[in-house]
Amino acid sequence: MYRIALLPGDGIGPEVVNAAVKVLKIAGEKFNTEFEFKTALIGGSSYDKFKTPLTDETLDVCYSSDVVFLGAVGGPDWENLEHHLKPEAALLKLRKALGLFANLRPARVYNSMLENSSLKADVLKGTDVLILRELTGGIYFGEPRGYDDEKGFNTMIYTKEEVERIARKAFEFARQRNKRVASVDKANVLEVSQFWRKVVVEVRKDYPDVQLNHMYVDNAAMQIVRDPKQFDVILTSNLFGDILSDIAAMITGSLGMLPSASLGTKYALYEPVHGSAPDIAGKGIANPIAAISSAAMMLKYSFQMDKASEIIENSIENVLSKGYRTKDIFKEGDKLVTTEEMTNLIIEEFEKI
Amino acid sequence: MYRIALLPGDGIGPEVVNAAVKVLKIAGEKFNTEFEFKTALIGGSSYDKFKTPLTDETLDVCYSSDVVFLGAVGGPDWENLEHHLKPEAALLKLRKALGLFANLRPARVYNSMLENSSLKADVLKGTDVLILRELTGGIYFGEPRGYDDEKGFNTMIYTKEEVERIARKAFEFARQRNKRVASVDKANVLEVSQFWRKVVVEVRKDYPDVQLNHMYVDNAAMQIVRDPKQFDVILTSNLFGDILSDIAAMITGSLGMLPSASLGTKYALYEPVHGSAPDIAGKGIANPIAAISSAAMMLKYSFQMDKASEIIENSIENVLSKGYRTKDIFKEGDKLVTTEEMTNLIIEEFEKI
Ligand SMILES: CC(C)[C@H](C(=O)O)[C@@H](O)C(=O)O
Ligand SMILES: CC(C)[C@H](C(=O)O)[C@@H](O)C(=O)O
Repeated sequence: MYRIALLPGDGIGPEVVNAAVKVLKIAGEKFNTEFEFKTALIGGSSYDKFKTPLTDETLDVCYSSDVVFLGAVGGPDWENLEHHLKPEAALLKLRKALGLFANLRPARVYNSMLENSSLKADVLKGTDVLILRELTGGIYFGEPRGYDDEKGFNTMIYTKEEVERIARKAFEFARQRNKRVASVDKANVLEVSQFWRKVVVEVRKDYPDVQLNHMYVDNAAMQIVRDPKQFDVILTSNLFGDILSDIAAMITGSLGMLPSASLGTKYALYEPVHGSAPDIAGKGIANPIAAISSAAMMLKYSFQMDKASEIIENSIENVLSKGYRTKDIFKEGDKLVTTEEMTNLIIEEFEKI
Repeated sequence: MYRIALLPGDGIGPEVVNAAVKVLKIAGEKFNTEFEFKTALIGGSSYDKFKTPLTDETLDVCYSSDVVFLGAVGGPDWENLEHHLKPEAALLKLRKALGLFANLRPARVYNSMLENSSLKADVLKGTDVLILRELTGGIYFGEPRGYDDEKGFNTMIYTKEEVERIARKAFEFARQRNKRVASVDKANVLEVSQFWRKVVVEVRKDYPDVQLNHMYVDNAAMQIVRDPKQFDVILTSNLFGDILSDIAAMITGSLGMLPSASLGTKYALYEPVHGSAPDIAGKGIANPIAAISSAAMMLKYSFQMDKASEIIENSIENVLSKGYRTKDIFKEGDKLVTTEEMTNLIIEEFEKI
């Protein structure tokens, strides 16, 4: 029995989390695994009730679960709050509290979605990158930090232990893939990057079967746009990973369809890459694929249910190849479906396999 | 009479600087302006002779000139030197020494080059962005910085004066263009960005005719790839500008053809965006267009020779539309030309107009 904390959040969060839960339940039945769900507030919906985007109660629900499944947070209602009260602040606090140091951002392209990208299909086809972003260190959390009337400042800092554990993850994931790691830094300018590079080279000694190369962040950003197929695993720091994983997501043309996982030693959090999309919230038209795909990642990485995970991914691919599309990815000639219809179609495929 | 310091540098640097000088001389004759050129070493070629990539003599040549024209630095011979001896270190030192706080990176697409991009032609067509990158502050120069066995760290810091002067430049350039500035930061996480945003909003009060919006850097990176046409002027910090200007350059598909300017209060430096391309150096096949276009920027921004600048740009466009291409941008059906031939073709066009 696995305990899953559900944090639906704001906007379309609740709708897509619902969809994912529906799929998880079917997968649980089929594979004889029981899931227990507990729901808690986060983000703007938590602020509205408790004047904070993340309560201790919600944290406790997470602590007493095996994994956390998050929808999305944010929206215009909370945009003008002080930074520490904004919905996004809850994400940072949660990452730190649960020790989620490894953010996995796979960027793959569904073949039937190739045309949705701003990139040419032949440049994109076959892209399959896994970005490993360090998530609890770097400039996001470094001290000292602050601002006054004359200046603002932050500290980009990494310790040996922080670099080691994320580098190890990168090499381990690479072993299960194409055995190539590109470590991205700015070592031609920053000492923190020179240190990062040294530690990564050191860790690599335990993974001689994995190829390692180093790239400057400006070049890496360009290379993702020029030729994304060249990458297998990209290993990088918190801030650089924030930028690169979004570029990689964008080039797939399927921002609404990409999953993510954030792993720690004890806890794990899964969440669709898209935001809360307040403009379409509550209309039943949100794309549930990113959430369902995040659920598939959960089965694989937290519950070792690789088979179930794979079947979900294949089911998504099948539904897409039959031309079904939610509104966000709809083009003339496609079959327009709602969140619920898309979810049911995926479940139908799942039950067939 | 204008004094121009030439710093050809390494790799293809000398070849493309030569080409630009040839065009400058013709422009000078045609528009009755005299240029005096003084050449000095920089980068690897300086290191080889003086064991430092930037000597005081070279700095003096720059100080006693009106503008600096730089080719490119770097190459495999100097890659394993200590960081402060590497060719790239000379760039950072030069920027600081000359007070070049405003880096201008225009990303435009030559119509006849649309197909060269990894982006779809309809996404790209009409793109005309000017990225204004702060160049002498931020994490590139912030103290404290360093690393030891246990950690590495840098400081991302901006003072009011630093943000004010680059913001002012951005609004002023926007006034000569489409009157829209997108200021890019990471204010949802970083205090230095919150400070940056506050100062930019303050400066904008003097430019009520210019539209200002704010974007997070992860989103901005995505938006450049998704729909580059939405941007007019992008205003950003040193590190974010490094990444964004390279993405913007890459999507044009003409990395070998983009110019740049770095402006201070007293000095200015012009330089092609491409690197030193050691693999093709000395073969006479380098693409001189980025250097020639940088010379055109120099005429416009440092010498108020707007007309001459425009004619050079049009000459480049004409030569390209006739199908002439250097090897780096050659495709089947094009007319392959050398560095010298390309330069002469542009001069021919120039003399026609
Ligand atoms: C909302 C923000 C704090 C967050 C980040 O920068 O980490 C987001 O961009 C992300 O990538 O999850
Ligand atoms: C070479 C390097 C120090 C430099 C930078 O990061 O500024 C380069 O990438 C650039 O953009 O001019």
